[in-house]
Amino acid sequence: MIIIGERINGMFKDIAKAIKEEDPEPIKEWALKQQSGGADYLDLNVGPSSPNPVEAMKWLVEVTQEVSDLPLCLDSTKYDAIEAGLKLCKRPAMINSVPAEMPKMERVFSMAAEYGAEVVGLAMNEEGIPKDADSRIALAAELVAVADGFGIAPDMLYIDPLVLPCNVAQDHGKEVLRTLREIKLISDPAPKTVVGLSNVSQGTKDRELINRTFAVMAMANGLDAGIVDANDHELMAAIASARIILNMDIYCDSYIDVFTRHNR
Amino acid sequence: MIIIGERINGMFKDIAKAIKEEDPEPIKEWALKQQSGGADYLDLNVGPSSPNPVEAMKWLVEVTQEVSDLPLCLDSTKYDAIEAGLKLCKRPAMINSVPAEMPKMERVFSMAAEYGAEVVGLAMNEEGIPKDADSRIALAAELVAVADGFGIAPDMLYIDPLVLPCNVAQDHGKEVLRTLREIKLISDPAPKTVVGLSNVSQGTKDRELINRTFAVMAMANGLDAGIVDANDHELMAAIASARIILNMDIYCDSYIDVFTRHNR
Repeated sequence: MIIIGERINGMFKDIAKAIKEEDPEPIKEWALKQQSGGADYLDLNVGPSSPNPVEAMKWLVEVTQEVSDLPLCLDSTKYDAIEAGLKLCKRPAMINSVPAEMPKMERVFSMAAEYGAEVVGLAMNEEGIPKDADSRIALAAELVAVADGFGIAPDMLYIDPLVLPCNVAQDHGKEVLRTLREIKLISDPAPKTVVGLSNVSQGTKDRELINRTFAVMAMANGLDAGIVDANDHELMAAIASARIILNMDIYCDSYIDVFTRHNR
Repeated sequence: MIIIGERINGMFKDIAKAIKEEDPEPIKEWALKQQSGGADYLDLNVGPSSPNPVEAMKWLVEVTQEVSDLPLCLDSTKYDAIEAGLKLCKRPAMINSVPAEMPKMERVFSMAAEYGAEVVGLAMNEEGIPKDADSRIALAAELVAVADGFGIAPDMLYIDPLVLPCNVAQDHGKEVLRTLREIKLISDPAPKTVVGLSNVSQGTKDRELINRTFAVMAMANGLDAGIVDANDHELMAAIASARIILNMDIYCDSYIDVFTRHNR
């Protein structure tokens, strides 16, 4: 699983404060800390309350790139902020995210084509998140087809089937697992898949246990990437173990260290 | 996942000693302890070095039944020992196991039909354990077909795809996961599936982590049962969480306690 570190997000108080006060230190610390934990990408999200998301995103991109070479995942519903960030990215980035809706797909896919960016496509539209796998897969197919019209190959897309908290929408779990598996049949090359892992455990008592259990269950159904807490050691150890079982890394006794330290 | 407690097995020194000395206390203790941990069945195996497996199996069945009402899983390659045990079982038992080989299938399936027992069928034959999923599935189909000839319904069978240690046969993991999923397409009703969980981690450094990671990956591909350490709390918590994600139990904050204590 590709690890997209979730921590530089204005939903966290320390990050919101750093953005507000233009204090680069917490951003740099979390960039390095997540990289040490094993992150492959760093998600950047200015948070819901930023008064100037364009400037805030530009600042996050610049500060993060001062200390880390990891590719960035620009996470916003404000596409102007994403575009401003893309202009500053030194490496091809990921856009997070677009639903299967016009004109949003047009706007995002044209940016993605221009900047060579990958795109997280959400299996939802104006009507919300579907309840079953088939409807999610239909939306994924729509995302793949529209992206193709902009010259974006399916494997530049990461489809997020949108997992809901298991304590309020328990019937979605199986559907999401089936969606992950069957999305691979949509096209050749297949689109990639991603989940925002912490959603599954919102409001539950033992969040980390549910997160890591769902992570490896999703990997066992072909999940490619997750937006996760790269510093949750038990999660990272579970992911490293799942990679061993799936023969994605060669077994050695120190495989967890090898996995979590590969980016240090 | 149905939990088959692995601990009453002569491979463990305390059990071998108890059998040898006809000391019922360790057997009773482990029966109750596994039941408290959440076991649904108790596996009974006299071990490889028992001089008289028939008498030892009879003794294990009688001692275990003195303290526990759980169904038993009679685990031996000596079919006379299994038959002697079946005669004493108060509840329908499980026979563990038979490979896809004649005349072994004949012997085991005729016993199973006579005693109303479930059967663990191994996806292997005289040529050994296949490397790929398709060959495993073919052997599962053979087990289902031969069992049918003895009037045994497919869902009385638990097919074990035979997982090998991930440090020596790493390419088998994905094949086993695919086998678990595709076995469900063999027949209607489908056969059930089972794994001897600890095999996957033989000789690795962090066995419990690999065991619980593989367990939930297998559950995400439809695994029905596992022969496991019912007193490994982290394993049982992971399995309980996977059951929540798969919507097999209703979420409540104390779901782990509910799951592990349901047999107390």
